[in-house]
Amino acid sequence: MKTSDLIAQIRKKNSFLCVGLDTDKTKIPEFLLTEEDPIFAFNKTIIDATHPFAVAYKPNIAFYEAEGIEGWRALAKTIEYLNKNYPEIFTIADAKRGDIGNTAAMYAKSFFETFNFDSVTVAPYMGKDSVEPFLEYADKHTILLALTSNKGAHDFQTQPVQNRALYQIVLETSQTWKNAENLMYVVGATQADSLSEIRKIVPDSFLLVPGVGAQGGSLEEVCKHGLNSNIGLLINASRSIIYASNKADFADAAAAEAKRISALMKNVLRDL
Amino acid sequence: MKTSDLIAQIRKKNSFLCVGLDTDKTKIPEFLLTEEDPIFAFNKTIIDATHPFAVAYKPNIAFYEAEGIEGWRALAKTIEYLNKNYPEIFTIADAKRGDIGNTAAMYAKSFFETFNFDSVTVAPYMGKDSVEPFLEYADKHTILLALTSNKGAHDFQTQPVQNRALYQIVLETSQTWKNAENLMYVVGATQADSLSEIRKIVPDSFLLVPGVGAQGGSLEEVCKHGLNSNIGLLINASRSIIYASNKADFADAAAAEAKRISALMKNVLRDL
Repeated sequence: MKTSDLIAQIRKKNSFLCVGLDTDKTKIPEFLLTEEDPIFAFNKTIIDATHPFAVAYKPNIAFYEAEGIEGWRALAKTIEYLNKNYPEIFTIADAKRGDIGNTAAMYAKSFFETFNFDSVTVAPYMGKDSVEPFLEYADKHTILLALTSNKGAHDFQTQPVQNRALYQIVLETSQTWKNAENLMYVVGATQADSLSEIRKIVPDSFLLVPGVGAQGGSLEEVCKHGLNSNIGLLINASRSIIYASNKADFADAAAAEAKRISALMKNVLRDL
Repeated sequence: MKTSDLIAQIRKKNSFLCVGLDTDKTKIPEFLLTEEDPIFAFNKTIIDATHPFAVAYKPNIAFYEAEGIEGWRALAKTIEYLNKNYPEIFTIADAKRGDIGNTAAMYAKSFFETFNFDSVTVAPYMGKDSVEPFLEYADKHTILLALTSNKGAHDFQTQPVQNRALYQIVLETSQTWKNAENLMYVVGATQADSLSEIRKIVPDSFLLVPGVGAQGGSLEEVCKHGLNSNIGLLINASRSIIYASNKADFADAAAAEAKRISALMKNVLRDL
């Protein structure tokens, strides 16, 4: 998907919400467990219920991998379902992969070709040649971890390097890589204070922002410091939407929560 | 597997060779492609031929993931085959995963429970809470990326932090984490110069050393600076062994190359 199509979708829906499909068989409504493929049945229902309020879906690959082959089958069905029924939706494989060149190319093939996601999250630790194989794909997006939402982000990402924080060096350095226009970045919502500094380094890039909702980040603070003239934000909520209820009303409850967040986003966009 | 069992195996075989199963359908002998599961057929033959000379096998997960569900099935069969037929072998899922706590726990479940590997490689960028869920497993090993063998290692890993290199901070910091005794580290063979410094920080830890063979690292240099009183090294070779030939003699050629490397190791151990 071209970035311009993502922006057009955001403007049309007045939402920049990404729904995280962290689908865990121990947390979905019990009555779904009798379905042939409970994970896909859950995802399909959540997608159908929430898509008017969301522009992106982000399966976290760990949750599928943990179920073995059954999980990968559910993931394949989920992305196929999204691509077929909601082709305007931006899809993110939250995989946080990172390996040397020839291996990175295999991961890129997996997520961009085998599964046909629009984007994949990638870890920066191994440097340029571990990321560039992803960047080669036109109209596919590589979402590099910059400053994450968890406590451990301060172990290394905020350590001082050349009078900057490591994550700032990651942002700056990655902008020099080939096809850097295909980069987006992960910045946790719990790190809103840092967003102004981040916008100085990557004014035009889209930022994928997890950590609103269950992790406690503030939507308003993120918007205040993170929006750019093309919106430039995808704000993710996972558990607060998909597990809003684990009863028969789970789809309605998920839709209500997605609608509530997208209404906040609509207000923000109106005031721009 | 307990570390003591790994050490006992190394002493018995006089080898600390790890064979990397980077199995790529475009590189294996063509006549195997008619097999029902060419990837597993190749792996099984390579394992049967090389196991007298190797103490560990390391499938790089990217190669399996790129084949979709078929690849995961081949991976499952490979690890089952190893665990059943060669229980003394140390198995490594080269996955380089890394995500926040609840998600890291899912990855740990995937590799330690669903697939029953002895160890998994993990990226450090997201810090303590992204690694500790792996460390909770007794007699399972978490192999943290420290200083990798690729060129991009110098983009971030060797950047100066607190008058040290970032990878040294990763080594030091990770040693303070809960269950740190379950940590091993990835150090590329192309970085042999740095091994003496690394041994000052982690004198007792096992190091997984890729980059001998196709990537050009020197076995002798790695041993000179990296060995400790419990050996403390697993040296990996992938392509130079498994693709030693792509003809009918591929198993013999792989065994010959594994034997050649293990003979060098035997010499090193004799001279200790």
